[in-house]
Amino acid sequence: MTEPQMKEKNLVFAADLGGTHLRAAAIDDSGEIYHRLKRTTPESASASDILSALVSAARECEEQTREHGVVGKASVAVAGTVNISEGTVLTAPNIPSLSGFRLAQSLGAELHKPVLIENDANAAAVGEMWQGAAQGVRSSVCITLGTGVGGGIILDGKLWRGADGSAGEIGHMAIEPFGGVRCGCGSQGCLEVYASATALVRMVRESAAHHPDPKLPGPEDLTAEAIYRWARGGNELAIDVFKRMGVYLGIGLASLVNILNPEMIVIAGGVANGWDLFSEHAIEEMRQRAFPLPASRVVIKPGQCGDNAGLLGAAKLAFNGSPAVGT
Amino acid sequence: MTEPQMKEKNLVFAADLGGTHLRAAAIDDSGEIYHRLKRTTPESASASDILSALVSAARECEEQTREHGVVGKASVAVAGTVNISEGTVLTAPNIPSLSGFRLAQSLGAELHKPVLIENDANAAAVGEMWQGAAQGVRSSVCITLGTGVGGGIILDGKLWRGADGSAGEIGHMAIEPFGGVRCGCGSQGCLEVYASATALVRMVRESAAHHPDPKLPGPEDLTAEAIYRWARGGNELAIDVFKRMGVYLGIGLASLVNILNPEMIVIAGGVANGWDLFSEHAIEEMRQRAFPLPASRVVIKPGQCGDNAGLLGAAKLAFNGSPAVGT
Repeated sequence: MTEPQMKEKNLVFAADLGGTHLRAAAIDDSGEIYHRLKRTTPESASASDILSALVSAARECEEQTREHGVVGKASVAVAGTVNISEGTVLTAPNIPSLSGFRLAQSLGAELHKPVLIENDANAAAVGEMWQGAAQGVRSSVCITLGTGVGGGIILDGKLWRGADGSAGEIGHMAIEPFGGVRCGCGSQGCLEVYASATALVRMVRESAAHHPDPKLPGPEDLTAEAIYRWARGGNELAIDVFKRMGVYLGIGLASLVNILNPEMIVIAGGVANGWDLFSEHAIEEMRQRAFPLPASRVVIKPGQCGDNAGLLGAAKLAFNGSPAVGT
Repeated sequence: MTEPQMKEKNLVFAADLGGTHLRAAAIDDSGEIYHRLKRTTPESASASDILSALVSAARECEEQTREHGVVGKASVAVAGTVNISEGTVLTAPNIPSLSGFRLAQSLGAELHKPVLIENDANAAAVGEMWQGAAQGVRSSVCITLGTGVGGGIILDGKLWRGADGSAGEIGHMAIEPFGGVRCGCGSQGCLEVYASATALVRMVRESAAHHPDPKLPGPEDLTAEAIYRWARGGNELAIDVFKRMGVYLGIGLASLVNILNPEMIVIAGGVANGWDLFSEHAIEEMRQRAFPLPASRVVIKPGQCGDNAGLLGAAKLAFNGSPAVGT
C-alpha cells in the first residue's frame, strides 16, 4: 500500500513593487499565500538593482515553497503605468529608474518563466474581487488611498484597463479644479491631493499653521498614522482633517457613481485604516450628490485584503491567463 | 422568366422621445432611415397621450414603409432613466408623466410587437458607434450637449449600462462642487450647469448683467442658437461664454480620460454645433490636466449623426437583441 500523495499545487510568484516596499509571496489558485516577504524597495537609480531584488525574492519564495508546489509564472504589480502586452513599465513616478524598462522580459530571462506585469491599483481591485470585499460582485471600483490615490475598475467581472492600460486613475479626477492644490500629475485639485496620506499630513500642517495646537508633535513626526491616533484620541484638528478628507472623497465617489453605476466601491490602502473617521462623511456627501437610484444601489466598504490586495490580484491575473511575456 | 424580387427588409420602428420633440422613423439593419418624422411631445400630464403619439407615429411609419419591408420590433430612446429588462421608465424629469410608466409593455400591447426602451443618451452613443463618429472604435464616450448634458459609455464595443441602467451620467460629474451653480439633480457644480444650452443662456445673462451690451437682444430671445450666431458675428461676450463652457467641458473630459482611458470622446447634441467656438478650449484644458498617455490617445470629435443619433442607436439595440418586452 502506498502513502496518499499530496497533490502538487500550481503556484504563482507574485510581487507588489511600490515606491517604498517590495512585497512578494507564492500564491496558489485558491488564494492561499505562502512565504510572504516584505523588503525595502532599493533606492538606487538603477533598474538592475530592482530587478535583482525581484529575482532574489522570487528565488527565495520558490525555494521555501517547494514542498507545496511548483511556481509556474511570475506576476508583478507595479506602482506605475504599464504596457501589459509588451511587459514594459511606461512611467513610475516613485520608482523613476523603471520608466521605459522591459521588466517582464528581463525578469522572465532571469527566472525562466513567463512574467506578467500590471498596475498596482488595478491588481488590488482584482485582489479584492477575488479574495476580499468585492467577492461575487460584477462591477466594482477599488480606490487605494495610500501615499497617492490609485484606482481599479472591474466591469462585468473583468478589469477595465482602457485603450492603453492606464484606466482607473481615480485619484486624478478633478475635485477642485479652480484654485485647488497642485498635484504631482501636473493638474490641480485632483482627488489625490485631498484624500491621500500625503494630503492628510498637508491639511494638518495647514490647519496647525492657523490654529497652533501645542498637543500636536512637530512636523517631523507628522504621519497619517499619527494623525489617525490623535483623531482617535479626540484631537479636534485631526478629526476635522479626516472629515474634510471624507467630504472630498465623497464628491469623487458621487461622480463615479453617476458615471459608472457600480455595485460596489471598495476603499483600500493604508488610509482606509481610518475608515471610522472618514467613511460616514464620504458616504453622506456621495448620497447628497449622486442620483438616488445608483446612490442607493452602491455598497461602499473598506478593503479586506489589506497589504495583500496587490499580491493576490497579481496572482489571480496570472491564473486567469493575462498576457505574459518571455521565458 | 420571373422579375427579380426586391428582398424585403427587416425594419425597426425607432423613436426618440425627448421633453420637447418626439422623433421617429423606420430603420433597416444597414442604418438606412425611412419616413422620418418629428412632432412636438404632448405637453399634457398624461402618459396615455404620449403613448398615443408613439402609437400614431409607429402606425404612420409602418404604413409608409410597407414597400420596403416589415417592422418587426419597436425601440424607444427616452429622456430619462429606464429599467430596460422591465421596460419601465423610472424617472423622466422633462416628461414627468412617464415616471414609473410601463412604456414597453403598453406600447407592445398596442403595436403587437416586442418593444425595448433605452436612455436617450445611451442610444445616441450606440448610434454614433454604428453610423457616426465612433465607427470601428472599441471604447468611446458620447457626451450629448443639449438642454442638459447626457452621456453614454461604450466599452469593448458594448454599451455600459451599469448595475441599474443608469450609468453614463457624465453631465453630473462635479466640476465645481464648492460654491458651484445649483443643478436640477440636487447637487451643485455639475458639468451640466456649465456645458449645456441652458448653461450658455445663464452665463450670457450673468455676464450681461455685469457688462450690459446694447447689441444683445432681450432675455426673451436668448437661446443657445442666438448666442452661437452672435459669437460667429464677433460678439466678445458670446465668444467668451463659449470659451468658458469649453474650459469646463475640458475639465470633465480630463477626468473621463483619466478614469476610462477611452479611444474616443464624441461630442453630440445641439450645442455641438458650436464646435468651432468651444472645442479648442476644451481639448487644450483636457490636455493640460489629463495624464499624457491617455490624453494623447483619445480622439475628441463632434458627432456625425445629428438628431438621428438616438433613433439610430435605438434601432441598433433592437437589431442586436437588447431585452425587449411584450408580445
